[in-house]
Amino acid sequence: MSDLLDHRVRHAWTPGGAAAVHLPPKAVRRLAERIGPLRAGAAVARESDLAVPESALPPAASADLAEVVGAEHVLTDRVARLGRCGGLSYLDLLRRRLPGELPVPDAVLLPGDPEQVQRVLEACARHDLAVVPFGGGTSVVGGVTAARGGKHAVVVLDLRRLNRLVSVDPVSRLAVFQAGVRGPEAERLLAAHGLTLGHVPQSFERATIGGFAATRSAGQASAGYGRFEDMVEGVRLATPRGEWRLGVAPASAAGPDLRELAVGSEGALGVLTEVTVRVRPLPAVERFEGFVLDGWERGTAAVRELAQAGALADVTRLSDADETEISLTLKGGGRTALLRRYLRARGVAEPCLLVLGWHGGTRREIGGRRARTVRMLRAAGAVRLGRSAGEAWRAGRFAGPRQRDALLDLGLCVETLETATHWSTLSRLRTEVRAALVDSLRAPGRSPVVMCHVSHAYETGASLYFTVLLPRDDADPVGQWVRAKRAACQAIAGSGSPLGTISHHHAVGADHAPYLAGEIGEIGISVLAAAKRAVDPTGILNPGTLLREQ
Amino acid sequence: MSDLLDHRVRHAWTPGGAAAVHLPPKAVRRLAERIGPLRAGAAVARESDLAVPESALPPAASADLAEVVGAEHVLTDRVARLGRCGGLSYLDLLRRRLPGELPVPDAVLLPGDPEQVQRVLEACARHDLAVVPFGGGTSVVGGVTAARGGKHAVVVLDLRRLNRLVSVDPVSRLAVFQAGVRGPEAERLLAAHGLTLGHVPQSFERATIGGFAATRSAGQASAGYGRFEDMVEGVRLATPRGEWRLGVAPASAAGPDLRELAVGSEGALGVLTEVTVRVRPLPAVERFEGFVLDGWERGTAAVRELAQAGALADVTRLSDADETEISLTLKGGGRTALLRRYLRARGVAEPCLLVLGWHGGTRREIGGRRARTVRMLRAAGAVRLGRSAGEAWRAGRFAGPRQRDALLDLGLCVETLETATHWSTLSRLRTEVRAALVDSLRAPGRSPVVMCHVSHAYETGASLYFTVLLPRDDADPVGQWVRAKRAACQAIAGSGSPLGTISHHHAVGADHAPYLAGEIGEIGISVLAAAKRAVDPTGILNPGTLLREQ
Repeated sequence: MSDLLDHRVRHAWTPGGAAAVHLPPKAVRRLAERIGPLRAGAAVARESDLAVPESALPPAASADLAEVVGAEHVLTDRVARLGRCGGLSYLDLLRRRLPGELPVPDAVLLPGDPEQVQRVLEACARHDLAVVPFGGGTSVVGGVTAARGGKHAVVVLDLRRLNRLVSVDPVSRLAVFQAGVRGPEAERLLAAHGLTLGHVPQSFERATIGGFAATRSAGQASAGYGRFEDMVEGVRLATPRGEWRLGVAPASAAGPDLRELAVGSEGALGVLTEVTVRVRPLPAVERFEGFVLDGWERGTAAVRELAQAGALADVTRLSDADETEISLTLKGGGRTALLRRYLRARGVAEPCLLVLGWHGGTRREIGGRRARTVRMLRAAGAVRLGRSAGEAWRAGRFAGPRQRDALLDLGLCVETLETATHWSTLSRLRTEVRAALVDSLRAPGRSPVVMCHVSHAYETGASLYFTVLLPRDDADPVGQWVRAKRAACQAIAGSGSPLGTISHHHAVGADHAPYLAGEIGEIGISVLAAAKRAVDPTGILNPGTLLREQ
Repeated sequence: MSDLLDHRVRHAWTPGGAAAVHLPPKAVRRLAERIGPLRAGAAVARESDLAVPESALPPAASADLAEVVGAEHVLTDRVARLGRCGGLSYLDLLRRRLPGELPVPDAVLLPGDPEQVQRVLEACARHDLAVVPFGGGTSVVGGVTAARGGKHAVVVLDLRRLNRLVSVDPVSRLAVFQAGVRGPEAERLLAAHGLTLGHVPQSFERATIGGFAATRSAGQASAGYGRFEDMVEGVRLATPRGEWRLGVAPASAAGPDLRELAVGSEGALGVLTEVTVRVRPLPAVERFEGFVLDGWERGTAAVRELAQAGALADVTRLSDADETEISLTLKGGGRTALLRRYLRARGVAEPCLLVLGWHGGTRREIGGRRARTVRMLRAAGAVRLGRSAGEAWRAGRFAGPRQRDALLDLGLCVETLETATHWSTLSRLRTEVRAALVDSLRAPGRSPVVMCHVSHAYETGASLYFTVLLPRDDADPVGQWVRAKRAACQAIAGSGSPLGTISHHHAVGADHAPYLAGEIGEIGISVLAAAKRAVDPTGILNPGTLLREQ
């Protein structure tokens, strides 16, 4: 538990209580030149400084829950509760660095199997307790905040003990996982069968199978392996109304696809306890490579051509010029300067880094696919950087959260947000979101950097992922980001007709719930609310997530 | 209108009042040897023999509806109403050949645009009229039966005037169609932009864009172009609660995907008025080809390997030995005998025909894909029949319904049903459905043929499509099929845990509604019913379709 506390309370992500990523001093200097003076921000709060109210869990409820999961799996101590006090958004992290009250649950339950989860929900319904399902706790949209939602107590249902690979069907290439299995463990269990899921979002090291499904996660290799919902063939959910299983065939015309209602339901329509996923042979060969395109428009046009020709690499990721520049800055080192000179000599005015990665059974198989892609890229004017640029990205593919800890320690406001839209709207959406962020964050002595990349491309459109960096406003650090996020969401959700989706792979949580009606209409909200009442008549499941409290 | 009447009342599908498919006499003789003596069945009913009750549409409702769509678009005449008295299932066709009452609507409305559809629904809600949306009328599962559902009158909403291509976005490869555009017209409109949808189900000639979406249609080239729901990027629905639009991005994590609730909603959750679809460049080159594999197990194993290697042809269709045999029989001719001898000489004991079709931009592009597929097939022991076998299938790809008319004229019971499941269950499901059909249909002097094919293959499983042929039981023709269909559905839906989905691409309609709870659970039914109440509080939309009447 103390390891968990270190992760979640002190340093958010980085294990061991100390930031594992150290930024080179030269990089810090160059960053400061760009965005304004940096200084160490609010110190990390000591555990003893954090306010933890008494648990409001009624003794009768506690006894009933202990009956289901065993007394040793009903935790009400300070450390266990502090360890599940929300997710990993910038505001979550900031609140843990500042004085003030944290959304600490009244108890943490550790059920041992799907049947126990079902019985826990029934007990919670009887005692009218709010229930927040909790996997890796990596939500960046307020999806695991222990909100009471009008109930007198809230329990966090930590699914870590649901950690089994239940079965494998190698003929159909299907695997059934319990919901609490984390990314690396899922891959380890599948690798024993020569199989892989191929789902590697940035949260991979911590996030769980249940969380991937509940939030419609998209991994870095989504072009090759699909989004997580593309992999989900079946689900088993616990709901206050009973167990619910879906998924008997690879495709069906038996009415609306209710799996698509369970996937993305963020714990508000049930607790995923098992997920049946499509798996694939473990790739024997991988190859990563970097290219540069000159400017955003040329870059996105090239990625669009690849997507529409079916020629995307499994990993396809295009950074805009600002992201390319800042990434090089944060790396520091002499090779960066060399690279800048090389690109200038090739006439590249605004280098946009394109990282491609292929996974395959044989070198020849990858070679055939790669040859076609590279031919198309050459025709689009791409400059090849070679494998080291691709390998450098791969080596740091999960380092983002750790790097964020280091930047927070430097007193920065650092956060990401993302959306997706159709190709013909992509540049307009990027321009408007950037402008909204820059306008709301600019202040004397503080100049935000807004970086953007496309990490998921489809035939008809792509995602946009923004990263914001600027000196924190220590007078009002929460308000600084709240205003910027609101401006960005309004730019995305538009007035009347949205320019893009409010989330491409981070989900709705509590943070995006106010914008959902703009995307799915008031009728959509009423349909979701009706579905929720059908499975959760008293509204105990993850209150305020997905649907605003009514 | 009289043309429509010919289609729908007299001969079901075949235009012009006469069966366009003539079976060679030799084929009829060989068929009779296999299944039992054939004789002309019940004569096609004359229009004047068909009972059409008075329209029960109240004058006030009629006046309100005329106000919305114009008096000339509120049809209450006998011909118009008879022309929309159900779909095209075997039982639908049989009922039109037999004396008895038909499910004739009280009126037919022809709205001219999405706004009129919306206002029609509001008027129908005010007057408490049941509303049955009607596109091509090709449902084979009772999805367009004019059921009153407890209301005092039912109107059919024929969407044929919603026949426009609203817009094309060539950059994003998206097109917006009104719901009433039929398959060939959609392709003609797109071809003017150099684009195609690539959706060619057997109902292509008649069925509509709205119908494709409402029923989760799957086209013959689904391996290349996807199922229809894979093509749907956005929908516009009219509902009694107001207009509902969904779909702003190629992919989203903004909660459950409600498009997947609209797609497959079969008119029970709203009337689709516009559909935004992903389109692709019109292929310049096509190639069809036939192969033979020896036996069902080898055949399905080969198709599975192709599907799991990403090596399926755009059209991939494997017939079992019975279907292969009967197809050859119905073709008649000397080449068939030659083919049989050729395959025997190659040691093929149980020939299973595999038809493959590729669509592409260039011959080279197709050649590259084909080479890989053929290499894998050779390794799996496939015998190549060449292009003529593929072209023969292509030439007759939409002829099934016409051939059925000809077989009905011969006094046959002829019907199809379909399902899908995972690869490891596929053979068991085929065996059990076959056995259920054969056991329930076998009778002295009548021996059913049950043919089966896989026409849609996925990484994790495939569809099964059954065709049943046997001499009609003139003493109880309806009961004969009702019992067989029930037995087949019970074999699919199983007791407790279903072996497959109750429909892979025909939808639920009224016919499969009793089996839906077995597939999505009572909780799933309650979620759908709640969603329906949210958009259609008084239950006027397509009563009895999708959800059984409560």
